[in-house]
This record gives sequence, structure tokens and C-alpha cells, in this order.
Amino acid sequence: MKKISILGSTGSIGVNALNVIDNLNDAFDVAVLSANKNGHLLVEQAKKYRPDAVAVIDNEAADFVRSELKHNKITVFQGREGLLELASRNDVDIMLNGLVGSSGMAPTINAVQAGVDVALSNKESLVMAGDIIEQEKEISGSRILPVDSEHSAIWQCLVGENMDEVDRIILTGSGGPFRTRDIDTFNQIIPAHALKHPNWDMGRKITIDSATMMNKGLEVIETRWLFGVDADNIQIVVHPQSIIHSMVEFKDKSVKAQMGVPDMKIPIQYALTYPQHAPASWDALNLVDVGMLTFESPDMNRFPCIELAYEALKKKGTMTAVLNVANEQAVYRFLKEEIGFMDIPAIIEKACAQHDWVSHPTLTDLFELEAWATRFVHAYPIK
Amino acid sequence: MKKISILGSTGSIGVNALNVIDNLNDAFDVAVLSANKNGHLLVEQAKKYRPDAVAVIDNEAADFVRSELKHNKITVFQGREGLLELASRNDVDIMLNGLVGSSGMAPTINAVQAGVDVALSNKESLVMAGDIIEQEKEISGSRILPVDSEHSAIWQCLVGENMDEVDRIILTGSGGPFRTRDIDTFNQIIPAHALKHPNWDMGRKITIDSATMMNKGLEVIETRWLFGVDADNIQIVVHPQSIIHSMVEFKDKSVKAQMGVPDMKIPIQYALTYPQHAPASWDALNLVDVGMLTFESPDMNRFPCIELAYEALKKKGTMTAVLNVANEQAVYRFLKEEIGFMDIPAIIEKACAQHDWVSHPTLTDLFELEAWATRFVHAYPIK
Repeated sequence: MKKISILGSTGSIGVNALNVIDNLNDAFDVAVLSANKNGHLLVEQAKKYRPDAVAVIDNEAADFVRSELKHNKITVFQGREGLLELASRNDVDIMLNGLVGSSGMAPTINAVQAGVDVALSNKESLVMAGDIIEQEKEISGSRILPVDSEHSAIWQCLVGENMDEVDRIILTGSGGPFRTRDIDTFNQIIPAHALKHPNWDMGRKITIDSATMMNKGLEVIETRWLFGVDADNIQIVVHPQSIIHSMVEFKDKSVKAQMGVPDMKIPIQYALTYPQHAPASWDALNLVDVGMLTFESPDMNRFPCIELAYEALKKKGTMTAVLNVANEQAVYRFLKEEIGFMDIPAIIEKACAQHDWVSHPTLTDLFELEAWATRFVHAYPIK
Repeated sequence: MKKISILGSTGSIGVNALNVIDNLNDAFDVAVLSANKNGHLLVEQAKKYRPDAVAVIDNEAADFVRSELKHNKITVFQGREGLLELASRNDVDIMLNGLVGSSGMAPTINAVQAGVDVALSNKESLVMAGDIIEQEKEISGSRILPVDSEHSAIWQCLVGENMDEVDRIILTGSGGPFRTRDIDTFNQIIPAHALKHPNWDMGRKITIDSATMMNKGLEVIETRWLFGVDADNIQIVVHPQSIIHSMVEFKDKSVKAQMGVPDMKIPIQYALTYPQHAPASWDALNLVDVGMLTFESPDMNRFPCIELAYEALKKKGTMTAVLNVANEQAVYRFLKEEIGFMDIPAIIEKACAQHDWVSHPTLTDLFELEAWATRFVHAYPIK
């Protein structure tokens, strides 16, 4: 039985992961759970899975959880520091990082430093600190197990294959809710328009990233760090049905694709059981019912975030970190309706251009950069 | 440098294989070539590749080849016996069997018995004698390397994977030229209607098999022998664009697919370079240009050959062999316009029902069965 800690257990990835663990009968012992604010669900999960410890970011929620679990011999850690302490534990086999945003970066680094394998859903970790994580992995021997459906697909297509024979990675993306919307009306987009994603049920931040297609840009950067493939050899193809989750083209122009129903439980389970395909508790893909798969090039005018991400990846160093933080803060401001939809790429572009670029940032550099970019985005005039 | 013999070098597979070998600079030394009747092309190939020996089935063509090559130190073998003698050579590393029809069976068995790996395009070998070939492989240690695009796709999807975790094989087929033709007009089909295949450039016999979809039925049987998957776990999906060449569904309902442009050089090269993906001399697949992939269930009323093949596979023993010989002879009679298109499945069904079934046929049993089924089909009344 493997010990697992789950960061963000009350979010979409965390809930799906616990579902997967239920179906893997006794393969995993849940040692740690963590939540931001959702104390009620965390208490329910803690009573069911009996972890050694839980972490709660929000102070009020932490008090609630502590009082509810006082008879359960579960240590309750509080705040950001509590979370980071739990992420540093080296007595677990695997840590699932289901956190959203750049706050997921430091827990990933802690787990990697502790020699723990990280099932990584938090794409910002590698976008912010790919270089650092790569170095720490080499020291500790820890592995990053991709949880994103796209990277899981690439990983599956590469099983038994040799990276020297890979020509190209083809990342698919649904194109989000605005793939066919009149581009002249993009400045009228409000959060409610963006929050209904056609295929995947995701959190608010990721849904906006999908609407701007920055999600795909971040995945291009993540692909670089997970598989060592350069920007020029990573292509984005819009595939609105989200059935093909990504592809690998080899030197003989043979293309392997991984497909499935759009259900995060498939890549989550694969990350936990790799290299095994354990039995599913969900339906099979029926391509005849799907009927048709379509493919188109992403429209770069509509989705300038894609180009920004490619440029950042080509410049490397702090450029992808500032791209990520600026995006995250701009998305939060858009969600509060303080800025417009097309202000998101505009702000990111400015932040990238104006920050002090460092080629090989330390973790301290990244934290300083995060503070700078956050201030920069919030100084942008309210509409 | 590996020594290769190529049976059927003047046919579609053979010509493509020599093209692939040209592009694999000096990886292969062509030791043997063979042709049925096309002496002119065989002489041209022999002068270019300088094999030790060639075989020619047709007597007149053999005389021509012998006279053209008399100064070239190339031994010319003649007739069926000459071919079988060359197929028994154990001083080659790999034999590509590009023969069409059940005449390809015995050369495959000879090569397997000689301990030579067989790059197998001749699907009839396994359909006729899967059981025998499996036993001989175990004794000699020889391997069957699939060349059919569908089986190459399955093989590629299985690289690094565990057969115990495979749920289903999904064989794709274009549906042939009559996928959408009014079924009430099927009795008016003549060879000229069938000989224009939408995607692949193939020989006449295979093109008719594609029109009846018996091609797909034979591939289901071949899949059984190549990968050990039972009929119930092999599904046919019609995919008119022929871009996805087949798929494997694993127990976690993750599906891997292999795709490419419809060019036989890809699977031929993969069989020769396995497990490597050597650089291509052909174009990459551009899914955006393709635009759309569609999927439908095969229409069993339109294509009764599919059901006949599944039933034969379930009964095993001589049943798949009689299916194959009856099909082959019926196709030849259809090509001579002696019988109608829908007579093909009708004759096969009768032959399957009336033959003396044997559970574990010997090679002698198979030869006798071949003679019986040939006589049976030719006794069918001319229309």
C-alpha cells in the first residue's frame, strides 16, 4: 500500500483523485489532505480517509476543522506555512498537487526536495520553476507524474519509445468557449460568458485560461519541462471535441495519439498507477457515438496569449514565471470584473516586457518576481 | 547490415519495400527477390540490388529473367518449388512476405521454420495457418513483424504495454467504395466499380476484399494470431479517411491510436526497423489539412463477409482457412465476371458450412482443404 498526500483535496482534481483511490481498493493510504477554505468537505474527507494530518489555508476554516476533528487523532496544520510543512514530508510515496495557480509551485519543490514523487496537476509549478525543479529532481531522484490530460496523453504515447526519435509534440485544445465568437465582440466578454466550458468541468481560474487559450500556452511550457522538447517542436491543434488528448509524432511520421472520454479520472488514475492501466470505473470511449473529430489551427489574433507563451518559453529564465503570475493576477481581476477580457493579454505582454529578466532565477528571485508582477498587474487602471 | 529476402518484390508491397530500403542507407542487403510474372521489373530490380538469387513463378518469365541475368551471378529459381526453396533459406535475417493470397502461407511457414523473422504483409498466412505458425514460432524463435497498416498500428500502440491490460482492439477500415452505395444495387456491381479504392493503392484481389470488407474480416482473424486477442474483444470501426490506422483500448479505457498519411511505406519501414522510428522520406500528417475524422459502425447487411469472418474465427480450426480459400477463389471468379458481387459471401457461407471441419489441421489437411474449397467454388454456377 502506497502512502499519498493530496494537496487541494476539496477541489476538482482532489475530489476526482479520492474517487479514483476508492476504486483502486486499498492500493493507497491517504496520509495528508489539504484545503483552502472548504472546511466542511475537508472534515468529511478526513473522517472517511483518516489521514495523519490535514492542512487548511484559511484561518476561520482551520478553526472549524480543528474543532470538528478534535476526537480523530488528525493533526490540523494551518495557513501557507502549515501546507508547506506537510508538502515537505518524506514519509509519503507520492504527493498529488491539485492546487491551482502559482501557490502550487513551492509545495512541488518541497516534495521534490524530499524525494517524493509528485503527481502534478498544478501546471504553474513547471511554468514558474521548471529549471529549479529539474535540478532538484536530479538530486533527489523524485519523479514528476503528469496529471493534466494533455501531458498524460503525451506520456502514454511515449511509453516504450525513445525521445531521440520524437519529431514533434502535438498538443490538442478544445479552443474554449470563444473559438467561433465574433472577434469584434471580445471586448464585451464578461466572466459569466467564459465560465461555461464546452467539455471539461474545471475551476474558475482554469476556465478563464481556457477561454484565453493561455491554458494551452502554459501547457506548451509544461511540455518543455516534462519531456525536454523545445518550443519549435511543440504544436497546438484546436480539437473542439476534446477526445484526442494529445499526440506524438515520431521521425518516421508515425503519429501516436491518446484518447478517451473527457474525464479527469483517467489521467489521475494513470499518474497513480503508472505504468499500469488499472481497471476503470467509468465508461469506455465510443467513437461511433462521437461520430466526428475535427481539427483546426488556433487563431492567433483571437488568442494572443498563445504567442506570448511561446515567446516566453523561447526566452526562458524568468520570462515564463512573469507570464504566469501576470496571467494569474489578470485573470483574478477579470473575474472581479475590474478589467476586460482582452486586457488579460495586454497586461501580460507589458509585464513580460518591463520585468527585470534573469536567466537562471533562484527561488528567492521567483518570489520577488511574483510580488513585483502582482503589484504590476494591480496597478493597471480599473476599466 | 541485415540480409533481407523480399517475396513479391514486383508487387505493391515489394516496390514500396525497396523504396524504404533505399532510404535506410545500407541498413539492408537484399539477398532474394521474387516475382510472379513481371520479369521486366524483376530484372531491373535484380540489376540494381544484386541479390544472390531470384525466384520467378511463371515459366516464360523465368526464361526471360534467366537470359537477362546470365552475366550477373544471380541464381534464378523457377516455379512454386523455387520460391519455397528460397523461403526456406536460413542465411537471411528477415523475409518480407508481400505475396497476395493463400499461396503466401507456405513461404511464411518455411521462413518461420528456418528461424527467420517474417515481415508479414500476406494476411492469408495467419488466417490459414495461425495455429501452425504459432507452434513453429515457439520452436524456432522466429518473429512475425506485421506490415499491414492496421496491425502495424496495433503493434505500435502496444509498445511498452502489457497485454494483460488490453481491453479491446479497435480495427479501423475505410468502408471501401460501396460504403454509401444503395444496397439494392449491390447485385449490379461489376469489377470496374470496385477497383477504385478511395484511399489506398492496392492490388486487384485486395481491392475487392476491401469492397466486400472481407479484408477487415481477415484482419480480425490476423489480429487474433498476432496479438492473442479473442474475437469478442476485436471491434471494427469504419473510418472513411483512413488516417487512424487502428487503436488499442486499455483496461482504464484509455485508447491509444496510431495515425499517419495513408502510405504503406510507414508500416513497411517500421517492420524493418522495429522498435526504431527511422527518419521518413515522406510527408508528415497534417491533421488541420485533413480537418475531420469520422467514425461509424460497419453495416452488416451491406458487408456480410464481416460476420462470416467473426463466425469462422469463433469456430477456429479449419474454418478460417476454408473462409479464406473460398473468398479468394470467389473473388477471382468475380474479377472474371463469372459471378456477381453478392455471390462472394453466399459462396463462402456455403463452403464454410459444407467442409469437413478439423480442429487442429496439419499442413497436409490445409492443402487438401485448399483443393476442396477451390473445386467447391468453381462448381458454383456461372451467372
